[in-house]
Parts: sequence; C-alpha cells; structure tokens
Amino acid sequence: MKIVALAGGVGGAKLAHGLSLALAPEDLTVIVNTGDDFEQFGLRISPDLDTVCYTLAGLANPRTGWGLKDETWQVLTQLKQLGAPDWFKLGDRDLATHLERTRLIREGMRLSQVTQRFCEHWGVKQQVFPMTDSEVSTELLTSDGTWLDFQEYFVKQACEPQIVDVHFKGASSALPAHGILDALEQADAVVICPSNPYLSILPILAIPGMYANLIPKKIIAVSPIINGQAVKGPLAKMIQDLTGSAADATFAAGFYRERFDLAGYLMDDQDSSLVSSVRAWGIICDTCDTMMPGEADRLRVANKVLSLAEACSARTENL
Amino acid sequence: MKIVALAGGVGGAKLAHGLSLALAPEDLTVIVNTGDDFEQFGLRISPDLDTVCYTLAGLANPRTGWGLKDETWQVLTQLKQLGAPDWFKLGDRDLATHLERTRLIREGMRLSQVTQRFCEHWGVKQQVFPMTDSEVSTELLTSDGTWLDFQEYFVKQACEPQIVDVHFKGASSALPAHGILDALEQADAVVICPSNPYLSILPILAIPGMYANLIPKKIIAVSPIINGQAVKGPLAKMIQDLTGSAADATFAAGFYRERFDLAGYLMDDQDSSLVSSVRAWGIICDTCDTMMPGEADRLRVANKVLSLAEACSARTENL
Repeated sequence: MKIVALAGGVGGAKLAHGLSLALAPEDLTVIVNTGDDFEQFGLRISPDLDTVCYTLAGLANPRTGWGLKDETWQVLTQLKQLGAPDWFKLGDRDLATHLERTRLIREGMRLSQVTQRFCEHWGVKQQVFPMTDSEVSTELLTSDGTWLDFQEYFVKQACEPQIVDVHFKGASSALPAHGILDALEQADAVVICPSNPYLSILPILAIPGMYANLIPKKIIAVSPIINGQAVKGPLAKMIQDLTGSAADATFAAGFYRERFDLAGYLMDDQDSSLVSSVRAWGIICDTCDTMMPGEADRLRVANKVLSLAEACSARTENL
Repeated sequence: MKIVALAGGVGGAKLAHGLSLALAPEDLTVIVNTGDDFEQFGLRISPDLDTVCYTLAGLANPRTGWGLKDETWQVLTQLKQLGAPDWFKLGDRDLATHLERTRLIREGMRLSQVTQRFCEHWGVKQQVFPMTDSEVSTELLTSDGTWLDFQEYFVKQACEPQIVDVHFKGASSALPAHGILDALEQADAVVICPSNPYLSILPILAIPGMYANLIPKKIIAVSPIINGQAVKGPLAKMIQDLTGSAADATFAAGFYRERFDLAGYLMDDQDSSLVSSVRAWGIICDTCDTMMPGEADRLRVANKVLSLAEACSARTENL
C-alpha cells in the first residue's frame, strides 16, 4: 500500500516514523508543512522539515521530539553573552543543518532538493517533501487586531494571544514541490498525521493543486486531541478561540470532513465514547492508544492507521 | 599621546594589544582591514576585525592567534558530516559572533556600529573601526590570469598561486567608517602594525580620504618581515612574486616611503645590520625583539614603538 502522509512537527514526525517502520521505503512519502519556516541570523530554518527528517533518521532528541539527540549548546550560550535573541533554541549540531541549507539555497538549490540531499546524508530512504519550494508564511490574527508571524506567536509569545484568524501568506501563488503531485497520484491512501489542523495541515492544503489531488484518495486522519487536550502545542486553546467550543477528539474529523470526504479516523482509547459520533458522519472510526513515545508505539499506531486505510478501501469496493 | 593603529589580523592584533596595555583606552584607535571579509553560509565574516577585537578583549586563542580560546567545534564536525565546505574553520563560539553580526547588519546596522556593540559586550574600551562600512573585497591576480578572492587564495589554495597584482574591489566608492577621520585628525601619530602591506594595509589606504588624513601625521611602521621571513602568512612569497626580489626587513619601510613620508621604522634585532639602510632614507629606525607571543612582549614592543613616535615628534620640533 502506497501512502502519502501530511505532517507538521513532533506529532506528525512520530506517526511518519511509525509508517516508515511498517512500509517499504518506496511506499511512503511525507509532505511536510513549511508555513513555520523563518529566517534567523540570516539562516533558513525549517522546523517541521527538520523534525520529520531527524525523526525518520533516528537522530531526533527523544526527550523534546525536536532537535538532535546528543546536542550541545555552545553557540547559543555565546549568543546570549552577546545579547543576541535566544528565543529560538539553536543547538550546535542542528545549526549545521541551517547553515548548509542556507548555503545551498543561496547557491540556487530548491528547498526540496536540499531536503533530498540531507535525507541521503542521514540515511532517510523515504521521500520527504516540503509542501512547497516557495515562501509561504503562517500568520495569525490576534483578538487585538495584530497579525503575528508563526514563530512570534508560537515561541516568543508562548501561544498566549487569543487567535481569531489564520492566513498563509504567499500560498496562493505557491506550487507544490516537484514530485508531490506524482506521489499523490500513485498513493493508495493519504494519512493526515496527528498534527495541528490549523497550523500544520491547513498550510499544506492551501497550496494550489493540493486539494484537487487529495480528493480522489482515501483519506485517513489521526486525532491530535486526546481527552480534550492536545498532546503538544496550542491546538486545544486555538479550537476554543476559533470555534468558541471546547476541544474534543472529534474535532479534526469534523474539521476535515468540511473540506473533503474523510474516509477514516483514529482516536485515542480515552475517547472511545465519541466513536459513535464520528461514525454517524459516515467515517470509519477506530481507537487505540495513540501516544507514540517509542518505536514500538509508533509502529503499532501506524499499523492501526494502515488497517483503517484497508477497511476504507474495502468499503469502497463493496459499494 | 593619541595613537591610531592600522592593523590586519594576527600580527596587527598583537601590537594593537600591546598599545592598549601602554596607553589610556581613549588614546588608542585601531583601524582594521576588512578586505578579507566574506560571506559563508549566508553569514558575514570579518576575520581581521574579529582577531583584533578578540585579542584586545583577551579572548583570542593564544595558540593560533585567531579565533576564540576554549573553543569547541561541534558545528564544524556536523557540517563535515553533511558534506558542507569546511575550509574556513568556524568554531562554535566564534560562530555566535558571525550570526549576531549578520542579524544586526540585516536589521540595518552598519559594520562599525556592530563592532562597537560587540566591543562593549567584550569589555574592549579602545575604539576599533572597520576601515569602511562599505563592501570592499581584496582580489589577487595570479600568473595564469585568474582573479582570486582573498579567502580562495589564502585559505583554499593555501597561498600557493603566484601573484602578479592585487586589487580592492569597491574601494574607490567606499568611505572610511564614521569616526575614523576624527580619530586621525586627533592622532599624534599613526602606527602601521606588522601586518601584510599588500593584503592588510593597502586596502585601508585604498579607501578614499584615508591618505589625505594620514599624510600630515607622524607615521611609524613595524616590519612584518624578520630575517627574510614573514612571522605568519604569505608575505615573503608575495614580495618575491610582486617585486622579483627576496624579502628583507627593509621591505615595508621602502614600500611605505613610496606612498608617504614614513617617519619611524622598527625592525627585529635579527635585522640590525639593515638599520643603516633604512636610516639612509631619512627614517628614524630602531630594533628590538619584535616577536609578541605574550602580554609582556606586546607591551615591550608597543613601548618601543611609542618611543620611536616621540623621537619622530622631537625631530620635527628641532627642525
């Protein structure tokens, strides 16, 4: 079964890792959000792309989920002493990624080509694509009328401002990175990882051509909400801000079914009481323990997702 | 006595350090070559400026003369693993300087302002100026007709090509950094440090306005050649390439007196047999042990330079 996964950062990376353990390398393509990308100190930083690649390579810091394991912090310590901004946690080894990415892009390489080159160096055999090679920036409108860029909101203001709208600057004139549409064409199913729908998945969907190529596919999503809470990040608070309702595990299913025909949905066992609500929307729904700290958990959840995808395909054949 | 020193990298930094130990902070201004500046990984790198500032701050690596002491190399190690160019030795702590410089310049600050800010952080109380805030690049014409930029020649090709000409791209439209002309105006003497005349001092002199403001001053130079050899770098070979003659310690005196009225010249004790040749040019000439590994040596040589400057002033008064 050929799978295309859509992923943001840590949560998406963990499921992508699980899928990489369950599938042959040529059967998995991961499309990664780049709406959070930014420049710092003149360097091109792609947080979600790095998190996904580091995780697939087995290089990720197991404690944080982002950054590299066995990291050191000499540069950041010295930056602090110079009075430089230190809100983005640049590790020494991680910094080499940003330096070389910046160099290659300045030499004329596209972000997707740089990513491919890095994956070769790191031994990542799956295809990993940035959603686009164009510059797309996630911006958030706060209740006091200010547009914040993503890192300003997420890191510097620690997700505290109330959000009333989200916009992806540059998306309307962007193109999917070369290779994405082919991968979607060949995919048997698309897996939407347990990433933030507003901040990680919507930017991918905002790239022209993405929807049209997703719609014919079986699409399976994994809930990023467990028992009313996001595993990581500001999603629960954003849902409250943007919908006026408390977050629950059916949220992502409802969010995606407004946009396309969601075929399957996986929630956590803690939310099994909500399965019937999702099934009432005509979506095949199942639960499992969706926490994925280690490889065994990631493989287990990935296999559950693949079973759901097969069930969705079987249902279509029976129609 | 108010002194302006012209300096390149390691040798210039050592004498500037000596002068900083001999003079009140407000009496020393150092003008530093930026013809070697370049961009790597998108970062603005100013090798001579950093060497001078690190040395004045007591932060320089005592073994190499460049870079920071107690340096670590995590980023460079990781860059190598990524297949990135590693010819320029970027230490982790040094990298913080380049990152923050790049950030501040991208925010609109001038290089001289960044340098002032860094000096405040590092506790350097002397004025240190880049020769210009404009981009000036030293380029070297090789005997096979190729123009090489400085880092290409100096680091990548290890100074091996034969040089037939030197050019400072951008110099004719550059201006001295704000504050330099005032410092020169107020100076009692100008000290040309034992730096490479072609690669470290000529670029400073190539900035319009610099000559006109130097000429009225007592100018004292220290020989960068000891016993026919450069203490560091390609100078002896360049002298052979560009003049057809072997290097000797009178070289810099002859080089500068072709350009302005050189008042004083300090050579190493090993070259005392050449003192009479320099004196024959009407230049007050003296010798001492000009090697400056430690603070005591630097102070000793600086005091010798200041005595020469006083002797030059006294001679003028007697005329």
